[in-house]
Amino acid sequence: MIKAGIIGSTGYAGQQLVWLLKRHKEVEIIFLSSHSYTNLTFSDVYPQYDRFIEDLCIDIHTAENKFSLIDVLFIALPHGKSFDITKKALNLGVKVIDLGADFRLKSTEAYENWYGLTHGCSDLLAASIYGLPELYRENIKESNLIANPGCYPTASILALAPLLKEKLIDPNSIIIDAKSGVSGAGRKENIQTLFAECNESIKAYAVGSHRHTPEIEQEVSNIYGENIYLSFTPHLIPMNRGILATCYGNLKEKITQESLNKIYEDFYRDDYFVRMRKNFPETRWVKGTNLCDLHVCVDERVGRVIVVSAIDNLMKGAAGQAIQNMNILFNINETHGLELMAMAP
Amino acid sequence: MIKAGIIGSTGYAGQQLVWLLKRHKEVEIIFLSSHSYTNLTFSDVYPQYDRFIEDLCIDIHTAENKFSLIDVLFIALPHGKSFDITKKALNLGVKVIDLGADFRLKSTEAYENWYGLTHGCSDLLAASIYGLPELYRENIKESNLIANPGCYPTASILALAPLLKEKLIDPNSIIIDAKSGVSGAGRKENIQTLFAECNESIKAYAVGSHRHTPEIEQEVSNIYGENIYLSFTPHLIPMNRGILATCYGNLKEKITQESLNKIYEDFYRDDYFVRMRKNFPETRWVKGTNLCDLHVCVDERVGRVIVVSAIDNLMKGAAGQAIQNMNILFNINETHGLELMAMAP
Amino acid sequence: MIKAGIIGSTGYAGQQLVWLLKRHKEVEIIFLSSHSYTNLTFSDVYPQYDRFIEDLCIDIHTAENKFSLIDVLFIALPHGKSFDITKKALNLGVKVIDLGADFRLKSTEAYENWYGLTHGCSDLLAASIYGLPELYRENIKESNLIANPGCYPTASILALAPLLKEKLIDPNSIIIDAKSGVSGAGRKENIQTLFAECNESIKAYAVGSHRHTPEIEQEVSNIYGENIYLSFTPHLIPMNRGILATCYGNLKEKITQESLNKIYEDFYRDDYFVRMRKNFPETRWVKGTNLCDLHVCVDERVGRVIVVSAIDNLMKGAAGQAIQNMNILFNINETHGLELMAMAP
Amino acid sequence: MIKAGIIGSTGYAGQQLVWLLKRHKEVEIIFLSSHSYTNLTFSDVYPQYDRFIEDLCIDIHTAENKFSLIDVLFIALPHGKSFDITKKALNLGVKVIDLGADFRLKSTEAYENWYGLTHGCSDLLAASIYGLPELYRENIKESNLIANPGCYPTASILALAPLLKEKLIDPNSIIIDAKSGVSGAGRKENIQTLFAECNESIKAYAVGSHRHTPEIEQEVSNIYGENIYLSFTPHLIPMNRGILATCYGNLKEKITQESLNKIYEDFYRDDYFVRMRKNFPETRWVKGTNLCDLHVCVDERVGRVIVVSAIDNLMKGAAGQAIQNMNILFNINETHGLELMAMAP
Repeated sequence: MIKAGIIGSTGYAGQQLVWLLKRHKEVEIIFLSSHSYTNLTFSDVYPQYDRFIEDLCIDIHTAENKFSLIDVLFIALPHGKSFDITKKALNLGVKVIDLGADFRLKSTEAYENWYGLTHGCSDLLAASIYGLPELYRENIKESNLIANPGCYPTASILALAPLLKEKLIDPNSIIIDAKSGVSGAGRKENIQTLFAECNESIKAYAVGSHRHTPEIEQEVSNIYGENIYLSFTPHLIPMNRGILATCYGNLKEKITQESLNKIYEDFYRDDYFVRMRKNFPETRWVKGTNLCDLHVCVDERVGRVIVVSAIDNLMKGAAGQAIQNMNILFNINETHGLELMAMAP
Repeated sequence: MIKAGIIGSTGYAGQQLVWLLKRHKEVEIIFLSSHSYTNLTFSDVYPQYDRFIEDLCIDIHTAENKFSLIDVLFIALPHGKSFDITKKALNLGVKVIDLGADFRLKSTEAYENWYGLTHGCSDLLAASIYGLPELYRENIKESNLIANPGCYPTASILALAPLLKEKLIDPNSIIIDAKSGVSGAGRKENIQTLFAECNESIKAYAVGSHRHTPEIEQEVSNIYGENIYLSFTPHLIPMNRGILATCYGNLKEKITQESLNKIYEDFYRDDYFVRMRKNFPETRWVKGTNLCDLHVCVDERVGRVIVVSAIDNLMKGAAGQAIQNMNILFNINETHGLELMAMAP
Repeated sequence: MIKAGIIGSTGYAGQQLVWLLKRHKEVEIIFLSSHSYTNLTFSDVYPQYDRFIEDLCIDIHTAENKFSLIDVLFIALPHGKSFDITKKALNLGVKVIDLGADFRLKSTEAYENWYGLTHGCSDLLAASIYGLPELYRENIKESNLIANPGCYPTASILALAPLLKEKLIDPNSIIIDAKSGVSGAGRKENIQTLFAECNESIKAYAVGSHRHTPEIEQEVSNIYGENIYLSFTPHLIPMNRGILATCYGNLKEKITQESLNKIYEDFYRDDYFVRMRKNFPETRWVKGTNLCDLHVCVDERVGRVIVVSAIDNLMKGAAGQAIQNMNILFNINETHGLELMAMAP
Repeated sequence: MIKAGIIGSTGYAGQQLVWLLKRHKEVEIIFLSSHSYTNLTFSDVYPQYDRFIEDLCIDIHTAENKFSLIDVLFIALPHGKSFDITKKALNLGVKVIDLGADFRLKSTEAYENWYGLTHGCSDLLAASIYGLPELYRENIKESNLIANPGCYPTASILALAPLLKEKLIDPNSIIIDAKSGVSGAGRKENIQTLFAECNESIKAYAVGSHRHTPEIEQEVSNIYGENIYLSFTPHLIPMNRGILATCYGNLKEKITQESLNKIYEDFYRDDYFVRMRKNFPETRWVKGTNLCDLHVCVDERVGRVIVVSAIDNLMKGAAGQAIQNMNILFNINETHGLELMAMAP
């Protein structure tokens, strides 16, 4: 049994992680930590889980004293909060999977520019692995510090990776128009995300300035082999869960739909969690699962390719992917605990 | 392995049943039948299930020819459509679980009055069992024809049963004010249930005339030992899933909250799927599960008791309960395939 | 021109009031006051109103200095906050319409019990009028302090008044099962009313203890002529606006549907804002209007009458009714500025 | 008084038109025609409008016999259905405003390719005017056949027009990623637009093939002076109303944000219904209004400009714009009957 601790267990991503870990047959939860709900049981915070998850939420100091009892630490905190904890855990030989942003950007400068913070342990960046298994499965196996990708980057990078690897599109032409459910904004007191403020409306936000932009750029640049700068525009949608990323790129040369399909199928041949679809996906197809549904389409009229990806922002976009990374880290079946099928309707 | 066939597999209840059966370790699906989608694969109709449920939907005549291969037949058809199929299946020694209304009312007259149809096999009514395991578990074990309860009756009867068994309330005072998500109206072309007709609104419907009324009355009368007539008012709510039943009754005598809690806890002590809650439940607590959450409260000011029950209308209110009945029928663990936890948010 | 000031102008009810006043041809807004958004323009807080409402929000002390310039003061503050302001305004000869709860209950004791506060000016209670024009139109004309009714009480009292006036139902049998959109909870930072906490769910809340209970009881008791205690159960529904109140009462004697219809039609014959409907109303029928839609139905099977009322909680349930009261106070056409038709869909 | 007839009055756009005409002080409705609801009163179909709109819906033949009584005919029918009616009305000297697609494309070939229909009166195309007042106000004044623009084209063209007129962007780089509420799909029996099929999900549809594409291309080409081919991707969003169009184009040369703002402000200086905003708009800001909210932003990092427009698809995207066109045609104030402010929340 893998012994796990979770810091930040009562945010939306954290609690989804706990949900998944509780069902995982190879994992034992050693502790759940929560800053806001210390000394409450988990089901006091989430009455959904009554009878199923009755663990007490402990504070972070008590949690740190239990690091010696665990094999893996999941951290689901706001950015800038993971530095010390990560160092402590690593020093004790505990593997760390950080669901936050602190170890995703390889460039300390980029981190400090986009997040407006001094990076507290940039020495760890070289060893950390960007935890997108479809790209870095082999590196993840060897690592002890996994930077779990952001939700938008997961959807965007998976949509674009085959195009970039094959250098089919002009790297300066990439536009990602993404749409997210409101749980992406987190579970915190906030007028902007009140029901009556989000329902019956849609908006773009953080246009040209969202912190997931450099993360996406870093990864697509890596794949392509050159620095890429792109447009990424997130939108807020009146639904709880789900991200749809509609991605555009100009084709360098003509390519048939069939060839393009084959390129994607080959690229993701061994990736259980990527489903290539015959039609453009809907977010409900992947709701509550770790799947990423993809459909790619050549639009010959305009010489452009359009790829749409759909994920559940809390699953493949956060907690599900964290479990997938854990499975790889501990050399168990990558799909373990993640064989989930969306429920209709 | 239990060999199962499903008639009416592509309605909302039917497909939820297929979803559950696919995950059930003791069941093999022999056929899925669908009138509207014959010769399509299941995942053509429900793209959610791509890769997971690729069975072909067959027509009902082809299905009937396979009755000899199955142990249990699930029927999820509109009322009035189950008579012949049920007879054929029973004659071949196949157990039948009917998710429709045709065998729920013991009185042919009541059926014909409320449904406006001649009952096609009232001779089977005596042997059929109302499949609410919390009340009839022992009878279900012995039966081969289970009338799976309606969604509103499940929520209502479970809420009221302990009060009636203990004769705590005036039987003429019962009011059930119930609220359902839109999936309860089924998956059929209908202007009334279009998104833009249901969103941002709520209404009562079928007031005083809903067909679940006699079903609830039959069962609460059985428990109480006298004929009971009650008010049942369903409402349509802008959400996909869930039923909340707010039930009122006048206390015959004063009773403390503690005594009432104990009565409910005792009544449901051995019922895994009933969760007694400390607070009034929300439908999201049981979404995607076979649970029924209950909270009961004495209102001394008015000498009345209020019970609120929450279920998922497609699970404990339909397909989940059908699986629960199947488990009992085949003498396997009642919770098998139903150990589901709601997902937040 | 009526000169108006508004205290608490940026809450949901307050801003709806401003919206209505801006369109009202007989009113000039002298000031808008807001505690949370002092020194912002109104359209900074509500970008919807850009170009239309560009007034600056002033603080309450600055507002008080302008009392001498106004004819009427609207107060939309949390309970317990209106006492001093009201006294100051009245002393200056300004008429006051209080959208809050501070002057609704005639009994200081009831106020202090249900609200847990000492009443700051119970001497004003005798002179204040409960501003439900359908009941108190003549008294409103003579008053200078109007206690604008709560949203649930408006829907409930209008539904029940004719039954009680005619003493058709047993006063001990009244049950009001009410459902409200989320704007009823106000525009404040609150995890409970986040989109992802309310969407796809329904719950009862404050069962047996909601502060609108004594308000409803006071008014129905007045109509009936005896003290009435009743059950009132509010529910939270995933929509922005609207209240549906489903009201039940036991008939003392048989009555025909036709007689009942006539009683309601007669009762509300001169009330523009009450629409008697042929069918049970839906909240979308009155959305964005000051209307109250009503349908009443005898259920002979159970000897009970069911009345359903639908209002917009921010309009007839708050700001619209306040305007209606203002129109009456200033002796202009009661419908002025309120001739609004719901928009479909 | 302008005497108006409406064909297709009970679809979502048609009924919104009736709603607006009823409030319009210069218009008298002579007839409402409806194929699906002939001989019902309007408020039987839309109970919202009870008491306000009690006209009887007449059939189309009866309607045609009344053409001699009207000044203007509004047609809100599916494409391919307007040809004969338009000819008849024009022959009688009646001005026609067609909310459908039959007269929008100037090229018969494009119409026949994209709509798969033979055009029934291509001789009228030369004289018809594309009814986007912000571009064609002067031509509209002179015309008697107005092709009222589609909802997506209205949002898209208004967003892009200043950029194209000033030739600031590469015409081959245009991408329009648009999002619409479900009312855009019309009020017809359809499983795809059931509540439970749309709620809690988002999808792209008709990617690269939506019929609004050639309409947008025609107009932006006209403005730019060269044939433009662009990407237009519509998405379906779980809300009733609203379109948000997120538009991208590559800047030919650097331009400051200030210059760009000035270009837009100048372009729309005399257009009441276009609001230039300081921030990216949300669809709720324009809900229930004829406004188009716009914000434009230079993203220097990528040398691209992003414009977001928000409209109400049934107002500026259909019925509101039709009224605006009528006002221009009859030489009355363009804003008459359209001075509507969105309601929050």
